[in-house]
Amino acid sequence: MGRQVIIDWAQLLLDIQRHAVKQISRGISLVENEAPGYEQLLLSLPANHTTRIIGVTGPPGAGKSTLVDALIGAVSSDGKKVCVLCVDPSSPFNLGALLGDRIRMSEWYNDPNVFIRSLATRGSLGGLHPKIIEITELMKAAAFDFIIVETVGVGQSEIEIAGLADVTVVVMVPEAGDEVQTMKAGLMEIADIFVVNKADRPDADQFVKNLRLMLAPAFNNHQREVPVLKTIASQKQGIAELYAAIISLLTASHDDSKRAWLLTERAYHLVQQKRMKGIRKEVLQQSILEQLRANQFNLYKFVEGL
Amino acid sequence: MGRQVIIDWAQLLLDIQRHAVKQISRGISLVENEAPGYEQLLLSLPANHTTRIIGVTGPPGAGKSTLVDALIGAVSSDGKKVCVLCVDPSSPFNLGALLGDRIRMSEWYNDPNVFIRSLATRGSLGGLHPKIIEITELMKAAAFDFIIVETVGVGQSEIEIAGLADVTVVVMVPEAGDEVQTMKAGLMEIADIFVVNKADRPDADQFVKNLRLMLAPAFNNHQREVPVLKTIASQKQGIAELYAAIISLLTASHDDSKRAWLLTERAYHLVQQKRMKGIRKEVLQQSILEQLRANQFNLYKFVEGL
Repeated sequence: MGRQVIIDWAQLLLDIQRHAVKQISRGISLVENEAPGYEQLLLSLPANHTTRIIGVTGPPGAGKSTLVDALIGAVSSDGKKVCVLCVDPSSPFNLGALLGDRIRMSEWYNDPNVFIRSLATRGSLGGLHPKIIEITELMKAAAFDFIIVETVGVGQSEIEIAGLADVTVVVMVPEAGDEVQTMKAGLMEIADIFVVNKADRPDADQFVKNLRLMLAPAFNNHQREVPVLKTIASQKQGIAELYAAIISLLTASHDDSKRAWLLTERAYHLVQQKRMKGIRKEVLQQSILEQLRANQFNLYKFVEGL
Repeated sequence: MGRQVIIDWAQLLLDIQRHAVKQISRGISLVENEAPGYEQLLLSLPANHTTRIIGVTGPPGAGKSTLVDALIGAVSSDGKKVCVLCVDPSSPFNLGALLGDRIRMSEWYNDPNVFIRSLATRGSLGGLHPKIIEITELMKAAAFDFIIVETVGVGQSEIEIAGLADVTVVVMVPEAGDEVQTMKAGLMEIADIFVVNKADRPDADQFVKNLRLMLAPAFNNHQREVPVLKTIASQKQGIAELYAAIISLLTASHDDSKRAWLLTERAYHLVQQKRMKGIRKEVLQQSILEQLRANQFNLYKFVEGL
């Protein structure tokens, strides 16, 4: 009993809603660790239709972190509150990311509009983060204007970020023209805005040109034109334009259907967890083994009894 | 109603049990197609602890089909009944396999001890065949002495065949010595018997030597020595020795634990299907979308109501 901490979930939610940074941080940790009773907190979250989620993704080395840092500056200068969630699914123990996170935290430490958190994926495979939906829902309660989710664009995480974010920004760096052709199709599909970062590189203009060619409606499924913007994030160049493009897209339309798809997948998974509670594979296996040895096993009879 | 066929499942099982070839074939088709009521048939299957399953796998081009054909001859000469299930997970529409199947069918057409069936995987990814357990259980009811499951060794199907078969035979062909080193670890792990087919190739002996070296207990997890046999299946050479080795392993021990593991996975999946009945993603998605638009959505409240 000594280690049992009684959590006042209602009070925690109130603290989060009044934007108490320490409690916001604690809330994320409790959800991440599935602290007993955390479902209560999630059940009590009010619906929120005003916070907007910006996804930032792209291949490793594209300068996503620097770009997000510059974007934070633009958002904060605009007087808006922003929460940044950094997810790196490629490395469960990414010390570099943790270190970078500390440096970034200290940069924004005194800015009450900015909250940054790295999420360790703990070896979860193929997705963005096992609790990313829950954590973004929690952050919405904290009345942020924007939540930026920053992640490396690899495989399944792309599909998820497209479902999670209201606007998805794909960041690339100029490369030899023919490499654009081999760009991962997934990144192409999900981009609402393309950013060519490090645009002072000599081949940047050719790269942008090739990108625009590939993005022509004839070659892909995009309903509308996808903006291609040039930035030099390390010098804050092009950031105001990027922020304006994001705001413009967010204002122009709000499409809940992508998000509904993602939430459906999650809801289905949660219902499955709920309904399979009490079914433990070790127990099944033991009793199957016993029945096999007794020459009494019939798979369908066995399942019928469960 | 005109197209509705009333199936007498009890009669079908009786026909299968008295080894009526046409009804065996029909039973497989009904299970494959999940004909309404097929669960009844599966529920009524008697437990059977005498039929043994022989898995034959290996890379494409190793001569698995020729080897299985030769093995059929050995089994049939021994007066035993054998069912051969050919699964090719790599090609849902493998016309070559179908054609080969017809040729093989005609070869054994007049042998009442031999039943051969190709199973189309219909694009199921990563596994052996979506109904392979059910079909082997059905074949056990038909009182075969052996069921040979022949499949290309690729990925997930290896794990499944190891769970399904009482003895797993991995077939290889002689290759340059250093290629053995890159042999898929999965095939190495699951082999109870190694067959080096086309053993009249010049580098066969070196290959066998390398294989035995790799199979030394120091290098792997095998509890007992794994026999490495040479065959020239097209000339029926080494087949009697292979059959003897299989019988010897089947007699020496009977381990249900691998099979219990596979059956547990399948049972869990079936329970999941049963408990999720009535939960349709399209319906969830529609109602999530409506609630999102009405700004009323809370994931956890939503799931609580299901």
